Amino acid sequence: MADKINRVVLAFSGGLDTSVILKWLQQTYACEVVTFTADLGQGEELGPARHKAELMGVKPEHIFIDDLKEEFVGEYVFPMMRANALYEGLYLLGTSIARPLIAKRQVEIARQVGADAVSHGATGKGNDQVRFELGYYALAPDIKVLAPWREWDLNSRTALIDFAEKNQIPVPKDKRGESPFSTDANLLHTSSEGKVLEDPWEEVPDYVYSRTDDLVAAPDKPEEITIDFKAGDALAVNGEAMSPATLLAKLNELGKRHGIGRLDLVENRFVGMKSRGMYETPGGTIYHAAHRAIEQLTLDRGAAHLKDELMPRYAELVYNGFWFSPEREMLQAAIDHSQAKVEGTVRMKLYKGGVHITGRKSPHSLYSEKVVTFEDDAGAYDQRDAEGFIKLNALRLRLLGRRDGR
Amino acid sequence: MADKINRVVLAFSGGLDTSVILKWLQQTYACEVVTFTADLGQGEELGPARHKAELMGVKPEHIFIDDLKEEFVGEYVFPMMRANALYEGLYLLGTSIARPLIAKRQVEIARQVGADAVSHGATGKGNDQVRFELGYYALAPDIKVLAPWREWDLNSRTALIDFAEKNQIPVPKDKRGESPFSTDANLLHTSSEGKVLEDPWEEVPDYVYSRTDDLVAAPDKPEEITIDFKAGDALAVNGEAMSPATLLAKLNELGKRHGIGRLDLVENRFVGMKSRGMYETPGGTIYHAAHRAIEQLTLDRGAAHLKDELMPRYAELVYNGFWFSPEREMLQAAIDHSQAKVEGTVRMKLYKGGVHITGRKSPHSLYSEKVVTFEDDAGAYDQRDAEGFIKLNALRLRLLGRRDGR
Amino acid sequence: MADKINRVVLAFSGGLDTSVILKWLQQTYACEVVTFTADLGQGEELGPARHKAELMGVKPEHIFIDDLKEEFVGEYVFPMMRANALYEGLYLLGTSIARPLIAKRQVEIARQVGADAVSHGATGKGNDQVRFELGYYALAPDIKVLAPWREWDLNSRTALIDFAEKNQIPVPKDKRGESPFSTDANLLHTSSEGKVLEDPWEEVPDYVYSRTDDLVAAPDKPEEITIDFKAGDALAVNGEAMSPATLLAKLNELGKRHGIGRLDLVENRFVGMKSRGMYETPGGTIYHAAHRAIEQLTLDRGAAHLKDELMPRYAELVYNGFWFSPEREMLQAAIDHSQAKVEGTVRMKLYKGGVHITGRKSPHSLYSEKVVTFEDDAGAYDQRDAEGFIKLNALRLRLLGRRDGR
Amino acid sequence: MADKINRVVLAFSGGLDTSVILKWLQQTYACEVVTFTADLGQGEELGPARHKAELMGVKPEHIFIDDLKEEFVGEYVFPMMRANALYEGLYLLGTSIARPLIAKRQVEIARQVGADAVSHGATGKGNDQVRFELGYYALAPDIKVLAPWREWDLNSRTALIDFAEKNQIPVPKDKRGESPFSTDANLLHTSSEGKVLEDPWEEVPDYVYSRTDDLVAAPDKPEEITIDFKAGDALAVNGEAMSPATLLAKLNELGKRHGIGRLDLVENRFVGMKSRGMYETPGGTIYHAAHRAIEQLTLDRGAAHLKDELMPRYAELVYNGFWFSPEREMLQAAIDHSQAKVEGTVRMKLYKGGVHITGRKSPHSLYSEKVVTFEDDAGAYDQRDAEGFIKLNALRLRLLGRRDGR
Repeated sequence: MADKINRVVLAFSGGLDTSVILKWLQQTYACEVVTFTADLGQGEELGPARHKAELMGVKPEHIFIDDLKEEFVGEYVFPMMRANALYEGLYLLGTSIARPLIAKRQVEIARQVGADAVSHGATGKGNDQVRFELGYYALAPDIKVLAPWREWDLNSRTALIDFAEKNQIPVPKDKRGESPFSTDANLLHTSSEGKVLEDPWEEVPDYVYSRTDDLVAAPDKPEEITIDFKAGDALAVNGEAMSPATLLAKLNELGKRHGIGRLDLVENRFVGMKSRGMYETPGGTIYHAAHRAIEQLTLDRGAAHLKDELMPRYAELVYNGFWFSPEREMLQAAIDHSQAKVEGTVRMKLYKGGVHITGRKSPHSLYSEKVVTFEDDAGAYDQRDAEGFIKLNALRLRLLGRRDGR
Repeated sequence: MADKINRVVLAFSGGLDTSVILKWLQQTYACEVVTFTADLGQGEELGPARHKAELMGVKPEHIFIDDLKEEFVGEYVFPMMRANALYEGLYLLGTSIARPLIAKRQVEIARQVGADAVSHGATGKGNDQVRFELGYYALAPDIKVLAPWREWDLNSRTALIDFAEKNQIPVPKDKRGESPFSTDANLLHTSSEGKVLEDPWEEVPDYVYSRTDDLVAAPDKPEEITIDFKAGDALAVNGEAMSPATLLAKLNELGKRHGIGRLDLVENRFVGMKSRGMYETPGGTIYHAAHRAIEQLTLDRGAAHLKDELMPRYAELVYNGFWFSPEREMLQAAIDHSQAKVEGTVRMKLYKGGVHITGRKSPHSLYSEKVVTFEDDAGAYDQRDAEGFIKLNALRLRLLGRRDGR
Repeated sequence: MADKINRVVLAFSGGLDTSVILKWLQQTYACEVVTFTADLGQGEELGPARHKAELMGVKPEHIFIDDLKEEFVGEYVFPMMRANALYEGLYLLGTSIARPLIAKRQVEIARQVGADAVSHGATGKGNDQVRFELGYYALAPDIKVLAPWREWDLNSRTALIDFAEKNQIPVPKDKRGESPFSTDANLLHTSSEGKVLEDPWEEVPDYVYSRTDDLVAAPDKPEEITIDFKAGDALAVNGEAMSPATLLAKLNELGKRHGIGRLDLVENRFVGMKSRGMYETPGGTIYHAAHRAIEQLTLDRGAAHLKDELMPRYAELVYNGFWFSPEREMLQAAIDHSQAKVEGTVRMKLYKGGVHITGRKSPHSLYSEKVVTFEDDAGAYDQRDAEGFIKLNALRLRLLGRRDGR
Repeated sequence: MADKINRVVLAFSGGLDTSVILKWLQQTYACEVVTFTADLGQGEELGPARHKAELMGVKPEHIFIDDLKEEFVGEYVFPMMRANALYEGLYLLGTSIARPLIAKRQVEIARQVGADAVSHGATGKGNDQVRFELGYYALAPDIKVLAPWREWDLNSRTALIDFAEKNQIPVPKDKRGESPFSTDANLLHTSSEGKVLEDPWEEVPDYVYSRTDDLVAAPDKPEEITIDFKAGDALAVNGEAMSPATLLAKLNELGKRHGIGRLDLVENRFVGMKSRGMYETPGGTIYHAAHRAIEQLTLDRGAAHLKDELMPRYAELVYNGFWFSPEREMLQAAIDHSQAKVEGTVRMKLYKGGVHITGRKSPHSLYSEKVVTFEDDAGAYDQRDAEGFIKLNALRLRLLGRRDGR
């Protein structure tokens, strides 16, 4: 806390925690706080954030509230979806992918207002502190980073609320008691962690779900939809063209209705511990399945298998917060190179939590009925070629077999 | 066809195609045919196979009918499941994993009866010919391989049936017409391909499904089950210990009832073309999800991520037929090394095609509530450590940022 | 041989073998042969090739002799060097990298002259047939490929020479007897294989070397040189700017004098067998070492390690002939992305077969003396950060250690 | 420094730095210090270490001096050599591989003497602190780690010497002035870093080399040697069987004489910075080349290529200090699986810094002269098989080419 800070840009949600941080920064560093509130589709009104910041003395011209939904989906979510990224085989990285964008915008604002520091409300145990700060440092190597949760002594809920009350920070009624779990939300997903979820043997209580309807209550009839892709990205649902954020919102609506995209996961955090989370990614789950389906038709095997082999690394980089790293960008370059002809339509049924592909077609299909057919193929494929193919693939195994004599 | 063959071991299902092959081999090579029929849980009676072989003059002592179900599940399916293998992100490799075992047993029989050749009924366009023959050559480098589909001129259904009738081979009524698709089945899955499935835009007709009940008709109430694992393999369902094959059969029964494990896939064959198949892997789908869930709790991150990175290669090797190869065995050695403590119980709900993990516990859990908790952790984790962790992870990015000035 | 061929473009060196092929194609297919002779810096005069083609009745306008040296080095060798590609850890891929360019130019000529087929003089045991033909098929999917060595019955040297004499093809005196080994050469390397080299225990005889001087006879004094790089490619030697081909030729001259770049290798061919070859890559060996050295200074660790992990796959693809494949291009996109700031000067000593880096500097160096110094670093690096870094990297190992108690 | 320490095991070289640390620990923690001095073949007498420890009041039964040379080479160096490990393409990991063994022995001694802490003399900027401490934590998760260089205020050479003099610690004359560089040595290598080496453009001065003779002064005649391998490890030089440590010492002697194994490297440290080091690994360089040569003959392509792809990861793990991690052990399991038949003899010439393989033979050779020969192979290989092999490998590229029409 020794460094002299003049002006700090705080990632500010308007909630209790970041309000306390705002005040704490003003008091502790005797510095000017600039607030930045991003609309990433978390589904909360942002007006109150402005009001609260004003109440705590932030200058109007230092209150930044930006709608980043289109940039978020178009420049972060879609590129990641091109990679079919799944962390630890299952997780669609909904929180991870939002952090670099917030960090980037914070750094831009810091430059604009001449701030020498940035700050965030992530705790010292989680991945988000890493994702924010790796973003800050990559984009502004000499910026100062303030992470109150790692510095202050407000280590219990009571201490936090005491601080709030002493400082005239309004405490919402429902925040008085302990919240039974903590969440993060954006247009791609809602995550829930902590408290009632901490025992990985205990089932996630129904009240934790907020973005997906209950499976049993979901419609008893499958709903058929289509998604159109071009150059690796989706651009229409049911034939209707949409901007990236609108499209993802539409898929969220469909996914919600059918209870799609719930994930109960025990995962490995970058900071070295295991945690248990529950993720709801309704639209993203549909998108992921559809993207794989259109790739099946339009990607060559060589490209597809290379992508599959690179994917776990890519997902790990995004999860760990290395979005702005040369290696993530290199992998992205490879992946994007493969997507030029990933175009066409995927049809699927949504039903009771499931996404069931029922058809896909493409103007750039590599599927050849003429070649694959069980019927006479008119010479498109010479079955005798298979003998030589097998013989030479087997040659090294035969030499081995002769040597090792199983 | 020039080589002189004395005795050949044929992988013989007892169906029309391999019956024709049996006769054709006898005629074409004037050789003795030994039949081998494996029970891999395909759900057909094997008695008729013996009868047909006898009818076509195979000596009783040269008719081999083996129940390989336990070996199949215990020595092939389970090791593959330890790898969480998915070909092209989705396919559980049900056909691929059966071929090496058949090849191995055929080679053993060939040695036992002094045969100089082996034969199979796979066509020249598919993967199975490769899988069979790579197995043969790896295990018996100097054996002769007869692949009638690549050699003969019975290239239409009509020609095949003509041949059958001329040779007193009974042709089942339902085989007279063109079958609308072709299937392969074993305890792990049933695959369907060809004809009505050849247009990847057309939905798979309902009548193609045989191993899974219709989703809409499936029970309206989730069914909760548990699977117990030890050393990476499952050993009990709902607390009841079972042998590998019994356990998989039990999961098949559960999965069938809930419509679990249907997959409509366009995949890349090793021989270079794309094909569209429909797979039903009811029990395997449940198993796969449960195995990942118990690994979440018991595998260290380093082991888990390495497994994820190696998995696509492993799956490709199995798919391409390289089960008996040094590189598959090397990967297996790495994977198996990780499984010693993969032990515990996974609870999940089966519902309308979905497998939903609801809890997992283990005597070897690496999950530490004490460390991860949002509450006071009594010093189990020092949040200040995160600062140094982030700073040093960021150092190279800061040096880059200073150089490249984004 | 059943297909009717009208016009074929033959990769024609002017040597005995391709002369025989030229005649054999004319006779066997009664077709017009177009010859294509590439100057890739193999160090032979190409005038005689024209003369011979004319003698055998090739129309003057169908004799193509192209200097491809700059394209070869600039568009094939340099991109490959950006990857630091080494096949099986050691081989600089000198033959492999030339084949796609020849194939590409052949296909262009085929289109230009309206040919329906292409042909080459590679044998049926080697990698080059694969590299040529994968190139042809990738670029001209419906072209016919004639591979006389796999088709004809001229299977002994005597038969070949008989055929030549019967057809008035001049047989050079030194080709009458069996050549003691066979070679391939271009600006990057000379390879030698076969006959006297076939026993991998026998030392390569001195007379096999043609591109590098004997190590013992090489200068007794090290020679110091510099290479300048920009955007990942070399552009000057000893401060003198040069075109790609000129630069590689200059390095070849330097390398030859100091006996640099000899490699005695037993390698695995794509067709499944092991072979023993001797390669001389004088300039390429220097280039490779220098490129790694400038990358050491200018590549971030993330980029460098990703490149190292992708390299074996890249090298395998080039070796196997998959230059024109999506996966090679994807890897190239990733690699090229990393090279923008790979700029600077490398100084090295050449001596008795060795390349010894003695210094490197760059305007884009990421090396920071200020940070790394053993002396007081004025706060550039806080050693206390290391504790947190280690603690969190250790956390998972500690949890494991507590569980497994070694 | 708050923790109460009762007894600490210090990795003690007997040099000035660790002597100061010994005293500082006694004073700062008022605790008993146990010294551990390992003989890893660093070439220093260890008697003085005992004497110094006694002088500073360490109880005789708490002075541990162990000869770990055979364990070091047999259980650490050889397994690593099986992987052909090279960090960043070039570095043989001589320092990295010694640290886990020291850490393991320290932990054993701590258990034996009932110590609650361990300590080392590595600085806060380097990799060694990480390697030591990851080892400690993996093997003894709850041990306390004291890293004086990160804690104390003896931050200049002068301060250190002042402390020594005030505490009657003898300061060798040559340590009074600033040493021009710092070194680490063991049986595998000597590393030199710092000060005169800090500018990566400046040539390494001659006086820095200690383990290898000057290249120009090295013998003018190549020396031919052989190494015999069995199960992946060397067991004889020039036909003479030797224990692991003796064998490596023998190769060091040979390598030294011929100036083999010098490496001037700018590398990426795990802590995030680049450093420049000079390594001398005479015997290891010979060993590495020989191991690759015997693998060429005895490893199948599948195994060899998989090893090459896994190697960079393996080397990174060793470099970063993750020897005792599940993922290093998994990779080792895969690698070791491949080594059973890696047996035979490699012949090479050592000359002026170079290791030149001249022959290799093996009772388990997979090289088949019969198959590879340019001569008539009597049917061992059917060249016509190559056509089918190429056709099916090309199929996907042709389908692509038809779609994309290059």
